[in-house]
Amino acid sequence: MKIPPHGRSVVEISQRALAGIDNPLDASRNALSAIALREPELRAWSHLATGTELVAPSPQAASGPLAGVPFGVKDVIDVSGMPTRCGSGTYTTAPAQFDASCVALLRRAGAVPVGKTVTAEFAYVTPGPTRNPASPRRTPGGSSSGSAAAVAAGMVPVALGTQTGGSMIRPAAFCGVVGFKPTFGALARDGMKVMCESLDVIGWYGADVADVARVAQVLLADAPASLYSGEYMQTIKIGFLEGNPCHVLEPAAQAVLDDARLALGEMSTIKPVPEIADAARLLEAHSVIMHYELARSMLPVASGHAAQLSRPLREAIDKGLAMPVQIYREMKVWQQAQRSRWSDYFGDADVVLTSSALGPAPAGLHSTGAAAFNKAWSLLGWPCIHLPTALSQDGLPLGVQLVGKPGADSELIAWALGLHKVVDRRQ
Amino acid sequence: MKIPPHGRSVVEISQRALAGIDNPLDASRNALSAIALREPELRAWSHLATGTELVAPSPQAASGPLAGVPFGVKDVIDVSGMPTRCGSGTYTTAPAQFDASCVALLRRAGAVPVGKTVTAEFAYVTPGPTRNPASPRRTPGGSSSGSAAAVAAGMVPVALGTQTGGSMIRPAAFCGVVGFKPTFGALARDGMKVMCESLDVIGWYGADVADVARVAQVLLADAPASLYSGEYMQTIKIGFLEGNPCHVLEPAAQAVLDDARLALGEMSTIKPVPEIADAARLLEAHSVIMHYELARSMLPVASGHAAQLSRPLREAIDKGLAMPVQIYREMKVWQQAQRSRWSDYFGDADVVLTSSALGPAPAGLHSTGAAAFNKAWSLLGWPCIHLPTALSQDGLPLGVQLVGKPGADSELIAWALGLHKVVDRRQ
Repeated sequence: MKIPPHGRSVVEISQRALAGIDNPLDASRNALSAIALREPELRAWSHLATGTELVAPSPQAASGPLAGVPFGVKDVIDVSGMPTRCGSGTYTTAPAQFDASCVALLRRAGAVPVGKTVTAEFAYVTPGPTRNPASPRRTPGGSSSGSAAAVAAGMVPVALGTQTGGSMIRPAAFCGVVGFKPTFGALARDGMKVMCESLDVIGWYGADVADVARVAQVLLADAPASLYSGEYMQTIKIGFLEGNPCHVLEPAAQAVLDDARLALGEMSTIKPVPEIADAARLLEAHSVIMHYELARSMLPVASGHAAQLSRPLREAIDKGLAMPVQIYREMKVWQQAQRSRWSDYFGDADVVLTSSALGPAPAGLHSTGAAAFNKAWSLLGWPCIHLPTALSQDGLPLGVQLVGKPGADSELIAWALGLHKVVDRRQ
Repeated sequence: MKIPPHGRSVVEISQRALAGIDNPLDASRNALSAIALREPELRAWSHLATGTELVAPSPQAASGPLAGVPFGVKDVIDVSGMPTRCGSGTYTTAPAQFDASCVALLRRAGAVPVGKTVTAEFAYVTPGPTRNPASPRRTPGGSSSGSAAAVAAGMVPVALGTQTGGSMIRPAAFCGVVGFKPTFGALARDGMKVMCESLDVIGWYGADVADVARVAQVLLADAPASLYSGEYMQTIKIGFLEGNPCHVLEPAAQAVLDDARLALGEMSTIKPVPEIADAARLLEAHSVIMHYELARSMLPVASGHAAQLSRPLREAIDKGLAMPVQIYREMKVWQQAQRSRWSDYFGDADVVLTSSALGPAPAGLHSTGAAAFNKAWSLLGWPCIHLPTALSQDGLPLGVQLVGKPGADSELIAWALGLHKVVDRRQ
């Protein structure tokens, strides 16, 4: 039942390149061929590397841990030589002079950017043209729509996205790929169009956790895999967060969450953690901070090009500009205080199991779906990973979310390596 | 003894424009004439608005609180239609498509950007060509060298700068202008080349506190002046921070600090606060965070243009790339914890009086001077304002620094309005 990746994994590609079996651009050319096959239907890309834009790794980079690995880049992040358009007609098509920091880090490790992926307009809510690979009449989620869809369709083994509310995790859930959002501040945002400075995080998608882990070694300058061992899995304390006082899960999402809880209970300690007492305030703080900051980041564009922006974005900017600074400051102080309160929320749990979305991808392309199960974690800045675990009766991807302690990005990925094997029912 | 501003103040310019005495570009044309006179000697500007680049405020903006006010912009911050070069030959001279957020906010209030000011290379330590208006063989300080010098020379009434270590306050001290660095996070950094995400702050210079306050009303969406009253001045608790265990003040700086303490003691409550116990650790944390983050923001440029970067910057990048992520993470967690510890440091003090610099601007243009009295506040993210108070026997500017509680930007400016009158000996 698993969607078969058309291409090879990150690990396979780099091994072949390092062994000299493939030359450093072979996998990228394969990716461009895979893209050409399904792009007319899926529309995941806003720009593809053609001719001189496809740049082979330097001799030094070609021996790096991501040698020859093609990747996609959400079009709010700069890639040298390619235009950045933020899903909007307001930006020029002039190529960026420099890579963003995260792109430069991947390139230095041997990876090859093959193009820019579709984003919702300025990473907010107005969808781009991308369709869900599992069901073309359904949304792929947003705002990192193209990156999630491209990985789900096997076009590229890995792609960069961003999250302000639920823009990394929701598309991962709807498209059925692994999606990882690091701790707030773990990655430099240089070269990214930052909409909300206190919320925005760069993350990435992969077909499986091993691929996500390999990229993490490069982007987080850390070594997740070393932490995983079967023995450790028996000592890990998993908190189970079933409820969300603000939303009710659809039956299909509830079923996979229950199934994951039972499966994990057979090998690890899993016990319920209480509902988040401040859930409503977390969402309120998210809304205040998002609107205030988004309005100021968008003001330069809105000043001269308001008519070219969607109505939801214009309304959000107006709302943010009208927001009293005192309320914004209060919410920022409260946010900072909450970020270090893991143990108040979840006691001695090492990691929390919860849902990623209300249900499978909804029908239609007019909306990217609800971020109900994501905004709280974005406000808190805690790392999250989506694990695809099942397909609905209609063949739609379903899965679960693991939330980690702040700064414990590598631990979260290491545990996800082990836990995913236990909860994945797609084989 | 005060350096006479050649032009009018922010308040005067906007009043004349609002009253229809001047048209909205008159003050900007006057500024460009004042710049033309002294620029060959001072070299404060990297780019000046010529022809169509000088854009009159929109009809709506022309009735704003900064109507017709010309301003300079440190060349790490985008201005629509002008190139951003970051004090480096590595950047193209292509004009920026959009203003930075802070520039758009000023423009919306009626202000007019008249050019880009010289920055040290990528806002780090390698100086640009700018000279100190008070003594052309001395440094103006850095990295916001051109902005401070341009305001000191009366070329523009206000200019934007940035601070990672001491890049706002030190140039204010060396050039003899008011310099304000807000609380970390108070201003959106959209459109700025951010070097260190956990440290960088946008600030501004003015000839006096009233001008700085008027700009604050626009950029901070707040109303500082309303807080000031003579009565309040008698109830304010001022902490006096004399010592810094890591550095010793020069006699001239010590004398103006002592004088300010005595003058303030005659009208307000001022009592010593203890030396900062963690002073050495604050500096260590600043160094770790700065190097780790700077290396990642600079990697895109360093990857292809290393030979065009100065040796100090290349060495800083190498140091940052080699820094273990665990040490960086520990220091970031410690930094976050310190940011809310005002009362642990300073008890019930409302504001702290301390030095801005070790002494007056040192001779020579090869270095921008030491940031000894600034890095701790940058690490803590607390707002600071430099008040020029005296001239040395050689005619070099001297002054003092006020540090405010986090988030209390408007209070700090309001108090500075009153306190500056008490401590200023330049008349």
